[in-house]
Amino acid sequence: MRIDILTLFPEMFSSLDHSIVGRARKSEKIDVNFHNFRDFATNTQKHVDDMPYGGGQGMLLMPQPIFDTMASFPHENARVLMMDPAGRKFDQAFAEELATEEQIVFLCGHYEGFDERIKTLVTDEVSLGDYVLTGGEVAAAVMIDATVRLIPDVLGKKASHEDDSFSSGLLEYPQYTRPEEFRGLKVPEVLMSGHHENIRKWRLSESLAKTQRLRPDLLEKYELNAEENEILKGLEDETVVQ
Amino acid sequence: MRIDILTLFPEMFSSLDHSIVGRARKSEKIDVNFHNFRDFATNTQKHVDDMPYGGGQGMLLMPQPIFDTMASFPHENARVLMMDPAGRKFDQAFAEELATEEQIVFLCGHYEGFDERIKTLVTDEVSLGDYVLTGGEVAAAVMIDATVRLIPDVLGKKASHEDDSFSSGLLEYPQYTRPEEFRGLKVPEVLMSGHHENIRKWRLSESLAKTQRLRPDLLEKYELNAEENEILKGLEDETVVQ
Repeated sequence: MRIDILTLFPEMFSSLDHSIVGRARKSEKIDVNFHNFRDFATNTQKHVDDMPYGGGQGMLLMPQPIFDTMASFPHENARVLMMDPAGRKFDQAFAEELATEEQIVFLCGHYEGFDERIKTLVTDEVSLGDYVLTGGEVAAAVMIDATVRLIPDVLGKKASHEDDSFSSGLLEYPQYTRPEEFRGLKVPEVLMSGHHENIRKWRLSESLAKTQRLRPDLLEKYELNAEENEILKGLEDETVVQ
Repeated sequence: MRIDILTLFPEMFSSLDHSIVGRARKSEKIDVNFHNFRDFATNTQKHVDDMPYGGGQGMLLMPQPIFDTMASFPHENARVLMMDPAGRKFDQAFAEELATEEQIVFLCGHYEGFDERIKTLVTDEVSLGDYVLTGGEVAAAVMIDATVRLIPDVLGKKASHEDDSFSSGLLEYPQYTRPEEFRGLKVPEVLMSGHHENIRKWRLSESLAKTQRLRPDLLEKYELNAEENEILKGLEDETVVQ
């Protein structure tokens, strides 16, 4: 996969040099290219922004530097992403979709807004969540991280994504590692029993209980099998008794 | 504000050296401290993770290195945040809440899960969204960015947050800067008119139409005044006619 990032701050992307994304670059699973669009500004002062027509606070990125940067590298059939609070919410399904693409381009604005005409270059307006950031850089780093780990062979055995919280549709059960007792806090006995079927049932029950308590919206979309239905019914009965 | 980050990858946080967060550090509005918890592992191989009790894929962070790192710096009354898909969703209200704190601590796991007992150290389990990341680092960078810009005097005149998309409760109207015409794409005439009242009305109407089209959920929470009610009614009539 080829990733192109239009940004005034390429040095903000050190997260892409390390860990799984860093390794994916070294093994050439992905090829990351930075484009500082200030280099493409045709005005002598290399300005990339200007005041909004009609007045108002803040500056807006001008179309020229962005259009000319986009014209400087091939991006036929690429997904061109821009952060916008009105955009499609980024989620696991979106990451899975992006992971199948051959090229993704990120337009990162930085506290400025965008001149509306820049949107004609964009295929996807994306929102990472309902909050405001100083720029698109940290948001692009998150989306790249979530996407790249889904590209085949990028994750090793150490970190398979088949166990991911969202791939099962339920929240994850509590997990424990050594020691058995730490400062008075003990690992639940069932996990030490070696009884695989009991462990499986305990984990499923914990997952269902946690999902019901914290994210009932996930449960609504989830297709329960007979065993899961029975466990949930049992949980409800417990709640009534308490 | 003091920010402490527990991470195996402090070098992934270059975004905190630049732009607004970087400036906030230079002007001592915030003080960022990194703690590599591998330095606190008491085993000779400096391992920080181990296999889950009861079996399963993936590794889990052990309690000892995290507990001992936390004991190495003061954090009374601090908010201690951990990423968890089951956690409270990060949003602008959450960022505003964090911006008033004196100290925030981020526990960043990295593809490993956490031993459940580590959660006894945590005040807030937080979810950035419904997607899986290779580690908490990029998520922490996003939350720090969203939070730090809300600390008084961190944003200069150039980028006030009073105009933020989410502070008005509506999505932002389209914005334009120079030139008036770029590759055949023109700035809407009203914005060039200099007629402030018409510009205000056009922008309000565009904001309402965009919010209604793309984020009706925001409109439900929004208290419409008489003018806004009338504009929305007008928009509905238009839709019916079409």
